[in-house]
Amino acid sequence: MDRVQVSIAGASGYVGGELLRLLLFHPKVEVLQVTSQSLAGKFVFKTHPNLRKRTQLQFSKLADLRPCDVLFLSLPHGESMEKMRGFKKIAPRIIDLSADFRLNRETDYEEWYRKPHACPEMLKEFVYGIPELHRQEMKHANFISSAGCNATVTILGVYPFFKQGLVEADRTVVEVKVGSSEGGNSPSPASHHPERSGAVRSFMPAGHRHGAEILQELSFGDPIRIHFSVTSIEMVRGALATSHLFLKENLEEKDIWKVYRQAYNNEPFIRIVKDNEGIYRYPEPKLLTGTNYCDIGFTKDEKSNRLVVISAIDNLMKGAAGQAVQAFNIMHGYEEGEGLEFPGLHPV
Amino acid sequence: MDRVQVSIAGASGYVGGELLRLLLFHPKVEVLQVTSQSLAGKFVFKTHPNLRKRTQLQFSKLADLRPCDVLFLSLPHGESMEKMRGFKKIAPRIIDLSADFRLNRETDYEEWYRKPHACPEMLKEFVYGIPELHRQEMKHANFISSAGCNATVTILGVYPFFKQGLVEADRTVVEVKVGSSEGGNSPSPASHHPERSGAVRSFMPAGHRHGAEILQELSFGDPIRIHFSVTSIEMVRGALATSHLFLKENLEEKDIWKVYRQAYNNEPFIRIVKDNEGIYRYPEPKLLTGTNYCDIGFTKDEKSNRLVVISAIDNLMKGAAGQAVQAFNIMHGYEEGEGLEFPGLHPV
Amino acid sequence: MDRVQVSIAGASGYVGGELLRLLLFHPKVEVLQVTSQSLAGKFVFKTHPNLRKRTQLQFSKLADLRPCDVLFLSLPHGESMEKMRGFKKIAPRIIDLSADFRLNRETDYEEWYRKPHACPEMLKEFVYGIPELHRQEMKHANFISSAGCNATVTILGVYPFFKQGLVEADRTVVEVKVGSSEGGNSPSPASHHPERSGAVRSFMPAGHRHGAEILQELSFGDPIRIHFSVTSIEMVRGALATSHLFLKENLEEKDIWKVYRQAYNNEPFIRIVKDNEGIYRYPEPKLLTGTNYCDIGFTKDEKSNRLVVISAIDNLMKGAAGQAVQAFNIMHGYEEGEGLEFPGLHPV
Amino acid sequence: MDRVQVSIAGASGYVGGELLRLLLFHPKVEVLQVTSQSLAGKFVFKTHPNLRKRTQLQFSKLADLRPCDVLFLSLPHGESMEKMRGFKKIAPRIIDLSADFRLNRETDYEEWYRKPHACPEMLKEFVYGIPELHRQEMKHANFISSAGCNATVTILGVYPFFKQGLVEADRTVVEVKVGSSEGGNSPSPASHHPERSGAVRSFMPAGHRHGAEILQELSFGDPIRIHFSVTSIEMVRGALATSHLFLKENLEEKDIWKVYRQAYNNEPFIRIVKDNEGIYRYPEPKLLTGTNYCDIGFTKDEKSNRLVVISAIDNLMKGAAGQAVQAFNIMHGYEEGEGLEFPGLHPV
Repeated sequence: MDRVQVSIAGASGYVGGELLRLLLFHPKVEVLQVTSQSLAGKFVFKTHPNLRKRTQLQFSKLADLRPCDVLFLSLPHGESMEKMRGFKKIAPRIIDLSADFRLNRETDYEEWYRKPHACPEMLKEFVYGIPELHRQEMKHANFISSAGCNATVTILGVYPFFKQGLVEADRTVVEVKVGSSEGGNSPSPASHHPERSGAVRSFMPAGHRHGAEILQELSFGDPIRIHFSVTSIEMVRGALATSHLFLKENLEEKDIWKVYRQAYNNEPFIRIVKDNEGIYRYPEPKLLTGTNYCDIGFTKDEKSNRLVVISAIDNLMKGAAGQAVQAFNIMHGYEEGEGLEFPGLHPV
Repeated sequence: MDRVQVSIAGASGYVGGELLRLLLFHPKVEVLQVTSQSLAGKFVFKTHPNLRKRTQLQFSKLADLRPCDVLFLSLPHGESMEKMRGFKKIAPRIIDLSADFRLNRETDYEEWYRKPHACPEMLKEFVYGIPELHRQEMKHANFISSAGCNATVTILGVYPFFKQGLVEADRTVVEVKVGSSEGGNSPSPASHHPERSGAVRSFMPAGHRHGAEILQELSFGDPIRIHFSVTSIEMVRGALATSHLFLKENLEEKDIWKVYRQAYNNEPFIRIVKDNEGIYRYPEPKLLTGTNYCDIGFTKDEKSNRLVVISAIDNLMKGAAGQAVQAFNIMHGYEEGEGLEFPGLHPV
Repeated sequence: MDRVQVSIAGASGYVGGELLRLLLFHPKVEVLQVTSQSLAGKFVFKTHPNLRKRTQLQFSKLADLRPCDVLFLSLPHGESMEKMRGFKKIAPRIIDLSADFRLNRETDYEEWYRKPHACPEMLKEFVYGIPELHRQEMKHANFISSAGCNATVTILGVYPFFKQGLVEADRTVVEVKVGSSEGGNSPSPASHHPERSGAVRSFMPAGHRHGAEILQELSFGDPIRIHFSVTSIEMVRGALATSHLFLKENLEEKDIWKVYRQAYNNEPFIRIVKDNEGIYRYPEPKLLTGTNYCDIGFTKDEKSNRLVVISAIDNLMKGAAGQAVQAFNIMHGYEEGEGLEFPGLHPV
Repeated sequence: MDRVQVSIAGASGYVGGELLRLLLFHPKVEVLQVTSQSLAGKFVFKTHPNLRKRTQLQFSKLADLRPCDVLFLSLPHGESMEKMRGFKKIAPRIIDLSADFRLNRETDYEEWYRKPHACPEMLKEFVYGIPELHRQEMKHANFISSAGCNATVTILGVYPFFKQGLVEADRTVVEVKVGSSEGGNSPSPASHHPERSGAVRSFMPAGHRHGAEILQELSFGDPIRIHFSVTSIEMVRGALATSHLFLKENLEEKDIWKVYRQAYNNEPFIRIVKDNEGIYRYPEPKLLTGTNYCDIGFTKDEKSNRLVVISAIDNLMKGAAGQAVQAFNIMHGYEEGEGLEFPGLHPV
């Protein structure tokens, strides 16, 4: 069988590098080109040192992209929408890892990103890239917009309760703890090691843009509200969301298990993690480093109607490159876990 | 002037060691004895290596405690209440750093600590040890019960809003991020470095006992509810609380500043930290290592009535030993910051 | 083709867990049994949480081991030699990951391990488990003794210079920086997170037992001396050796390259890492996490005859489980990298 | 008594900030001005956030420096020598924390710093700033050049053995492990948190400029050679040197103790740390954070004439600002520990 020929536009960053790693070892894929304007002509292993001795690929210029079967976009936010009309001429299928096509409504971009969308006619053609929510649409899609990392970890944890209408509409509070790789690969005073090391930085106590995606995906008719905060902690990879839901009616622990089983029992990349003993009673992001899992745990507050949901991912994997490859697999009818077998390490 | 003669019962742990460090360098204090049952006869600097070449003190047995002016108790929870009647014969003034006398009501111990209190008649004699709330009582108190670390960081952050009745009664969600020193100095599989390192561990998503203190101190008549969770992160010292309050009426940023200024303007150990630029826009626990500060910041969610309060402390200082010394100073009419001058380090 | 049936005696520790992870996903292997005396009957994923949803295997008792093709031993040091005669009845091929059969001479055990060897007649049957040194013997071996992690990283870095007799005999100084996983999975005061976190602990400034293996493998006739120290640093996985060699005759950089190329050019798991620009100019252990690589770099001191060699591995992989699988592959005539494809992550 | 009026030229960096912290709380000092060209007019606590609520000082321009008693220079290397003639007009006493006046010989600057010295006539007027070596000269000095951090930690550890001629001349190997604060406060790709976090980076395997100072201070007649390497590890503050000395004649442990006692017994900031039990058997830099101590330990290799010396400091304190204040105290006849009382924290 011929391999699917893919290219990556914007492969010098952390998400692009992770995507390249996955695609290079994907048995159904041939990587044709990867672009970087500033690094064109240089070996990719100089930028992604884990690929040393694994590939002799060099970066190309964006303008030199040749036609391919699938084009992955891992460009800075705002760039995909500017160039989408051109990209469509290069590849019949596009998976965009930026935020540019995540929101369905043009007005949402104006509200959350504070500028008009450059390619609004394409918004409806893109499927939002969380397979657990949109698998059926993905099977026939040509355009997929990969979900935000903080949105992914939040949505997957709480989705079944919103879908079934079990949650009080305006009370959910979500706090995501994130690592430094979320900020990308550009150094800044805030990312300078002596300052960032050991920090517990209230990065976005309110107003984080991923809130828009979360609202979009968790709304089923009635208006809802998600009170969303992001705190940066000492970690490179990983995101853990602690979501405080308030249940309309009392649910016992076995009912909650049932909700999750019903929603996720056949999901290859969702694991419910809830133990009464041992060290790892709830999801732990460090165990997910390099994997495509979203682990989900929960506890019901005995003294109130609060359900605390704990969900964890590797932000560069299930929160970006891994989920994009999962979507790619669905799109092509492959095994969903193809190229995503790595189980993670312990200890780590 | 004669120095106040103090002893510490239970000085082998992290809180006891920190207390000893502060008291050894306190200009108004002479440390008489420090106890440890298992280490009696050994030099304290073997256990607290930062005190090497600073003191030749050795541990004593509890039974060998001699009369002193002030007895600090840093024993395991449950032991102070068992032995309180005896301790009262040794010292006219007692500052207890355990949880044993924090709650005013005997029934609260049964509900939250699941066993009957061994010395209930003393509960009302103890002042709850947060100076910002109980300074006047402390001035005349002989018995002070130091507050829990997670309770302290939470209460100080949100107190003015509860006191003024500005907050919806049952909606507050608090998530505290804590370091590994909170767990004390006993090794366990959970504290084993390869497992604990880099962890984001949902230590107590619900049911944390400090919730009892918080409710006690924030209730002003009407019943309230605090939805409280604790997550352990990669950090040794430090605690940061992210508190999500829902305001009854809209307050603008300047109103919020006013609430804080009114409450805390003369407080020597409270700083309001809220900047629009720079790296340290909100409180950062690592900057507080070794200090007695509680730094407080906030942001008002533009899209809702949510007020996010961020408060940070060093759990062994303002959350334990430092606050105990602050209370000691108030009790004796000393400058409140005596022995607590260390400003913290940067970078760190 | 039938898969090779393997079992692991002693699979509850970190090395055993890593070995299990590799063997479970090895395309030529079927894992029959894994043992743990204390955990018999329990699911392995409870102990190795990265294997959750990847295997339903449970621990067996050692006494319940059934015959298999290859038996891996990952028991505490001293146990393999006691039980070796029994293990030989279970499996025709044995790969021992303990130190029990690394040294060729019985007297070396008495000198370095301070007790008589319990099974000296087998010492000569075991091949020392570094493929880059003993590949030919491995091809026909039934017994392989996996090398120590600190020995592996040191030997691989300097081997070509010792083999060619380029180094002054008694001057080499080696300092290895190691992570906390080297100490195994048993908690202790020394591994307690508040103490171990951020430590730079002079664990073994002299007298480390891996010195014996290093001497054995680097001696080619004339007596040599290796001055060996180990320092524990903030890291879970990984080991980096800085070796200071003193060259008998001056070598220029290109000569040194030549020595390495000649020795390692066809080695699948050795990479020479030496760049004049960029962040990763020399080997970096964090990039090797989960991989079987040994990365080697060097610099020649302009002011003296010192050659500084920097070599890095993942101590649980190339330093233990990965190298054992590499040896297993050689033993069976498989591709050497079978089951060892993971390239490592960046950033991490 | 009037306080000594001091200013700091170049107070925006990490060393300058640490110096300011110490001087602000020094009982004999009044801080007059602190300069920063880029931050002139801004509050210093915006840059050094640990000083929030402790000082209302603002940065001045270098050109606005007024006369003072002592001028501290914490400028980028190369700037002090350019401007020294001007600084002498402002202050009769100068303590320079840069490298510009550390070496006694003009030719050494050309060899190690690769450019001619701009103010060679002043080189002989500066006393090299390690009090343990140059206390007597400091008492009468007007110009002190603070020692490099890596040089300080190395020299203090091994000095007594070189002074007494106990060491083989050309064999000493020193490896210093350092934290990220040594690199200063300017962000770069190499200091970007996702890259620098958890790194074991062979920063300077050979050729580090501090080698020049070390040679200068350890040479007593016969030529010596120090084989010096620096490795950056996961740490913000702190430096630990592992020095491998080769003794001319065999010394037993008690002889080595005697050498150290004789050299350092009255030193307020040197502690010999060598225990046979416990966690902290050798010096540990994290315990020294914020202190002016240099802790020194050692072990004698039983199998050779190697003496391994382990020495640790806080690079910003004993390695820079703290040592400068210690020198300042000596210069003025104050208690040497004035303003340097902080004992460090545990746990941390």
